[in-house]
Amino acid sequence: MNYNHLFELIKRKKSFLCIGLDSDIEKIPSSLLKFDDPVFEFNKSIIDATVDLAVAYKPNLAFYESRGVAGWLSLQKTIDYLNGFGDDVFTIADAKRGDIGNTSNQYAKAFFEILDFDALTVAPYMGKDSVSPFLNFEDKWVVLLALTSNEGASDFQYFKNSNSKKLFQEVLTKSQEWSSKENMMYVVGATKAEALTEIRKIVPDHFLLVPGVGAQGGSLEEVANYGMNDKCGLLVNSSRGIIFASEKEDFAEIAREKSLELQKQMEKLLSENNLV
Amino acid sequence: MNYNHLFELIKRKKSFLCIGLDSDIEKIPSSLLKFDDPVFEFNKSIIDATVDLAVAYKPNLAFYESRGVAGWLSLQKTIDYLNGFGDDVFTIADAKRGDIGNTSNQYAKAFFEILDFDALTVAPYMGKDSVSPFLNFEDKWVVLLALTSNEGASDFQYFKNSNSKKLFQEVLTKSQEWSSKENMMYVVGATKAEALTEIRKIVPDHFLLVPGVGAQGGSLEEVANYGMNDKCGLLVNSSRGIIFASEKEDFAEIAREKSLELQKQMEKLLSENNLV
Repeated sequence: MNYNHLFELIKRKKSFLCIGLDSDIEKIPSSLLKFDDPVFEFNKSIIDATVDLAVAYKPNLAFYESRGVAGWLSLQKTIDYLNGFGDDVFTIADAKRGDIGNTSNQYAKAFFEILDFDALTVAPYMGKDSVSPFLNFEDKWVVLLALTSNEGASDFQYFKNSNSKKLFQEVLTKSQEWSSKENMMYVVGATKAEALTEIRKIVPDHFLLVPGVGAQGGSLEEVANYGMNDKCGLLVNSSRGIIFASEKEDFAEIAREKSLELQKQMEKLLSENNLV
Repeated sequence: MNYNHLFELIKRKKSFLCIGLDSDIEKIPSSLLKFDDPVFEFNKSIIDATVDLAVAYKPNLAFYESRGVAGWLSLQKTIDYLNGFGDDVFTIADAKRGDIGNTSNQYAKAFFEILDFDALTVAPYMGKDSVSPFLNFEDKWVVLLALTSNEGASDFQYFKNSNSKKLFQEVLTKSQEWSSKENMMYVVGATKAEALTEIRKIVPDHFLLVPGVGAQGGSLEEVANYGMNDKCGLLVNSSRGIIFASEKEDFAEIAREKSLELQKQMEKLLSENNLV
């Protein structure tokens, strides 16, 4: 999916919601354990209940790899199911990969060919040649970690040079030499919404993937105030706050309620910015 | 495996060689394609031919993930086979993972419980809480990226603060607050052997995993001169230079020859340092 198609999708659904499929098998309702692939059944129910409200889905690989081959099968079925919706959903593999060139090529093959995701989260630590291999696929995206929403973000991402430029700002600046707004987005933690002003100065046009609204405590309104641009430029993720809002058999229904709440707020924010 | 056992293993085999199982299915001899799992057969042949010469094996996950479920099965069989050698081999999953705490927990489960590797490479960008979950497993190790051997290493790893401290030095310093030489090693690119003197000032006792000897062009002697400590403190990796030294049916035999060359050099270096 390209940049304009993504904006069209956001306008059509009046939403910039991304749902994180962090589908921990130990947290899904026990009623699903009777199925051959409980995690896929869980994901399918969540997707079916929310697909008119969310523009993107983001499985986090850790929750699949932790189940070995069985988990990889659940992931394959989930992305196949999502791809059945065509250009009606944007898909992100939250894998935070990154390795030397010939190795990143293999990861690109894994996520963009075998699994056919639209986008992959990538860690920037190893620099240009670890990221570039992912940029050679038409209409596929890198979502580069810039400023994350966890406590440990302060350990290295705020490391400052003699001009007070922080590492995450250097990541934003330098990565633009290798990429464009058409194939690169950035992870920016919602809990640092003030930093969004600074970030928008460096990357005015790029999409930002904002985790941490909901369970991690960020405010949607603040994110929109500081981060929205004239093509929306935001995908805001919620994972546990939606998919595990109920632990019971009504999980999909409650996931829909929580998604609808967010979508309604998003519609209002898009409307206030004259985008819908 | 703990710190002392690893040193004992190095003394017993007179080697600090790690063999990288970057087993690209497109590069293995075509004669293996008749097997159900050609990559596992390839790995098994390499391991059988070199297990008296190498102390460690390091599959890079990218080459397995790029084959989807089939690749994950090859990886599972490979680690099961390696674990059959018990304390006679040290195993490293080269996966460069790292995510927020509850997610890293899942990766830890994947690599230390389901697959039962001794060690996992981890990217430091997200800081303490992305690394700590891997440190809670007895006799398991984090191999943290510090200074990598690729060209892109210069993009961010050399980012300097106002005291001319580089990011990779900050990673070495700060990560010692969360870990010890008993559960943490560092990736240090061999092509920067002079930097090893600086690095040894910060981490005198830790093991360093040094990639880039061979195909990536580092010198073993230089690495030993600058990096060896009184417990050896080094694991030197070679991947393509060993496993793909021959593309023909004699691949395992040639892999043994290449490994033997390196092991002989390592024995000499260990002996010069009075460690064997």
